[in-house]
Amino acid sequence: MPPIDVRTEPGRYRHWRLAFDGPLATLTMDVDPAGGLFEGTELKLNSYDLGVDIELADAVQRLRFEHPEVRCVVLESGKENVFCAGANIRMLGKASHAHKVNFCKFTNETRLAMEDASACSGQRYLAALGGPAAGGGYELAEACDWIMLIDDRRSAVSLPEVALLGVLPGTGGLTRLTDKRRVRRDRADVFCSTEEGVRGGRAVEWRLVDEVVPPTAWQARVRARALALAEGSDRPDAGHGIALTPLSRSVTADSLTYPFVRVELDRARRRATITLLGPDAMPSTDIGAVHAAGAEFYPLALARQLDDAILHLRLNEPTLGLLVLRTEGDPAKVLEFDALLSAYADDWLVREIRLLWKRVLKRVDMTARSLIALIEPGSCFAGTLAELVFAADRSLMLAGTREGDNRGPATLGLSTLNFGAYPMGNGLTRLETRFLGEPDSEERARERIGEALDAEATEALGLVTATPDEVDWDDEVRFLLDERASFSPDALTGLEANLRFAGPETMETRIFGRLSAWQNWIFQRPNAVGEAGALKLYGSGTRPTFDPGRT
Amino acid sequence: MPPIDVRTEPGRYRHWRLAFDGPLATLTMDVDPAGGLFEGTELKLNSYDLGVDIELADAVQRLRFEHPEVRCVVLESGKENVFCAGANIRMLGKASHAHKVNFCKFTNETRLAMEDASACSGQRYLAALGGPAAGGGYELAEACDWIMLIDDRRSAVSLPEVALLGVLPGTGGLTRLTDKRRVRRDRADVFCSTEEGVRGGRAVEWRLVDEVVPPTAWQARVRARALALAEGSDRPDAGHGIALTPLSRSVTADSLTYPFVRVELDRARRRATITLLGPDAMPSTDIGAVHAAGAEFYPLALARQLDDAILHLRLNEPTLGLLVLRTEGDPAKVLEFDALLSAYADDWLVREIRLLWKRVLKRVDMTARSLIALIEPGSCFAGTLAELVFAADRSLMLAGTREGDNRGPATLGLSTLNFGAYPMGNGLTRLETRFLGEPDSEERARERIGEALDAEATEALGLVTATPDEVDWDDEVRFLLDERASFSPDALTGLEANLRFAGPETMETRIFGRLSAWQNWIFQRPNAVGEAGALKLYGSGTRPTFDPGRT
Repeated sequence: MPPIDVRTEPGRYRHWRLAFDGPLATLTMDVDPAGGLFEGTELKLNSYDLGVDIELADAVQRLRFEHPEVRCVVLESGKENVFCAGANIRMLGKASHAHKVNFCKFTNETRLAMEDASACSGQRYLAALGGPAAGGGYELAEACDWIMLIDDRRSAVSLPEVALLGVLPGTGGLTRLTDKRRVRRDRADVFCSTEEGVRGGRAVEWRLVDEVVPPTAWQARVRARALALAEGSDRPDAGHGIALTPLSRSVTADSLTYPFVRVELDRARRRATITLLGPDAMPSTDIGAVHAAGAEFYPLALARQLDDAILHLRLNEPTLGLLVLRTEGDPAKVLEFDALLSAYADDWLVREIRLLWKRVLKRVDMTARSLIALIEPGSCFAGTLAELVFAADRSLMLAGTREGDNRGPATLGLSTLNFGAYPMGNGLTRLETRFLGEPDSEERARERIGEALDAEATEALGLVTATPDEVDWDDEVRFLLDERASFSPDALTGLEANLRFAGPETMETRIFGRLSAWQNWIFQRPNAVGEAGALKLYGSGTRPTFDPGRT
Repeated sequence: MPPIDVRTEPGRYRHWRLAFDGPLATLTMDVDPAGGLFEGTELKLNSYDLGVDIELADAVQRLRFEHPEVRCVVLESGKENVFCAGANIRMLGKASHAHKVNFCKFTNETRLAMEDASACSGQRYLAALGGPAAGGGYELAEACDWIMLIDDRRSAVSLPEVALLGVLPGTGGLTRLTDKRRVRRDRADVFCSTEEGVRGGRAVEWRLVDEVVPPTAWQARVRARALALAEGSDRPDAGHGIALTPLSRSVTADSLTYPFVRVELDRARRRATITLLGPDAMPSTDIGAVHAAGAEFYPLALARQLDDAILHLRLNEPTLGLLVLRTEGDPAKVLEFDALLSAYADDWLVREIRLLWKRVLKRVDMTARSLIALIEPGSCFAGTLAELVFAADRSLMLAGTREGDNRGPATLGLSTLNFGAYPMGNGLTRLETRFLGEPDSEERARERIGEALDAEATEALGLVTATPDEVDWDDEVRFLLDERASFSPDALTGLEANLRFAGPETMETRIFGRLSAWQNWIFQRPNAVGEAGALKLYGSGTRPTFDPGRT
């Protein structure tokens, strides 16, 4: 299979159509059965695979940047008689465990991005279920603000995974039932055991959908509801979108290069080094110039490139278990850009850029690779970029200078953006999470905003793990990276999934931490993927045989 | 292997010693290497298996009921040079996946019972680490209120599971690092990667232990700290304990019978029917009589019997995936006992009985079996017993009477105890959890405390799933039970683990929901349990070979 590329644009979509009408956009799912990522997987009945979801994620992102006028997105099906049949089962049956896990993680990130668009960008989502929505199809609806179901005596919503496939709904479906829609637990249990699903008045009574509508009134009511949702939005009245121009990237056997991101792959040592480059120049302080720069505006360009690099590594380089995070550039310039992102926080585009960084940093948090930040002379871990230090499992900062290197000692810089702009999935900033046991430390760090903090100050503030000097640096770095590469990749995944998300849980962390963990467990059990397992045998006409032992 | 029996008493302990000195108790771990549950597993260096933990759980329970004078329990080792080496690795390497999962669940429940004794019963726990505490040994210490570590230049605390075994610390160790001890995440990462652990001043600075003490001062400082912890307790000044007399139980091939609990096993249909019997007589309203009755007092006797039955089924009947919950008796009498438990809530023994019910009901919640409550004429689901209806995944209540049955229609009863006495692991009552999406329903239920609610009223209040009448009852029950037995046991485990615990997360739910789920995942990965896996090869002299793919 060729590498999976998440870069796309509406002109290249095979599975979705976008249409615009004033404050409303319509996003029509019309999956091309022949357009599956895997050879020979037919995507019938609007069932989807990762390729379909990559386009959806692109559309959700573009709606925010390219269409500030859109206040409500109507999600509908382009097929007669079906909204969406969920994730394609043949694909799941054939895919490797790692692909299944990555697929679910990405689709979860996309659903959460829809909810983020509604909560933070004033783009509401309306699920217009003009036909049955099963499994992942219903989960897609659950990610919307409002679910309308056509009342045609045949269209139902359902989560048939447990009954049919011996696995769990994998895209947050169970967590949204309990936490978002707050369905009573025994009703949720009935719903999840009922292959044919629930329809009509009962679907409303059980809070599975928000309204059912007779076919004759369908189109008018969908439009009226979309306009009502748009009413509640704080999107700007005017304003032109900016184009998310194609990302330029060059790929070789052992590297990946973007204008501001350089990734070196070391397969023998199982690691990738990601170097983020600082900005070339100080920003113009004029907000008009930010809009004029559009996708070329440094913080936006960097966020998109980093996001693409992380996804490339997740999807195509599973054995690179270690991501080494580096920066090169002038920290003062990085802080100037942060100042601009603070000063114009109310501008719709700046808001989107900050929100994109929030999501990209969450994508980093959720990446099942060890993250090590190296802060060396010439680096520019400041403000937004310093978040990567706080996202890392460990961070090493070189104290002092290197002989023969005429650059000054490395510094770390904080900006106001480190104190609220980029909450993690748990709702806390990375610094709040880091300092859960010592909230005073967060306050002490806040007092140092804007300073160039050397290794001594950074260590005293508790912002890095260790600060070896030149004499020890190479050995310490080598030891750490080699040791990490020697550990069980699975144990590291579990360790990091637990240590990274201290403190409160949210629907989002519950989806990734509780639901996904159980799902990953089930996905490798013989009852699902063994020769007689339910996922393996689905559609074959043969009933699965289960080991009856409960654990 | 013979069935695992959790019934024990101090006179039969092989691995622990209890000693008393006024407000202090000393619980000495001195594991008999030859006393392992599995043939040929030597429990060296105070390493433990389920048998060792069964005794610990018994000791923790008895301290609460039999020793009201104890205000602080000192946990120490009876071995020279080691506190506890953690769970026995050979046992883990040999045990089935199901046994590993059950082992970890039980040990987690025991640790949480220690924390509950401290938080709710005023029995503080002091971990006196006079030697190294590794893995589960350190996790045992984390469950205590205060950790003292001897500063002898060799004794360290450690969680070497990731580095040595390719698995996670399985008894809440990671969650307590982040949530209870609030260790900075990068330090936690270093700690969990360091086989030899952390000792001395760094262990205090990193909040891994609360104090380090030189050997010369050890005994005096431990005693002084224990007395200081005892000072903060609200245990009664006087009062005699009650003896937890041996549980009588008779076992046949297809039944388990206690005075108030009857369990029928139907292996062909993969279910067990648990029938709880109501009290024989109204209680005396005299608190003195409660103390005199001691372990024979109905609510206490019933809780202990139910707990034993649940554990027996968990540990010895893995293929009985369905627990059908029934009651027989007079609901009015059950409510009278609840009234007594409410009226004397401040009495130390009544408090313990209520707390025991809280824990037993949590044990039910955490049992990886489908729970179905059947409410029929002659049943007594009232107050405390009604919690089982709310704990069930589904509940069916027969509306009206049965022909030829002269008993009146089934009723359900609520008491004040349903509204706060028995919080789930998530900190909410079962009714609050049930009604997360409709808090008014909880209020409406509260207004009906003490009434005998018939099927119509119960359904209107949202307290049961369905209320078939005599005509439909048998078919509906049969369909439900057969359908449930036909589903993938693993998918049901994941489904129930998600639907049962809506709403807030706590350290407790995070341990069972996030940490345990990841751990169960890792426990079945080839990198841990395959022929070249780390857990399999530990101690063999051969290094494990890992599949490097990260997921």
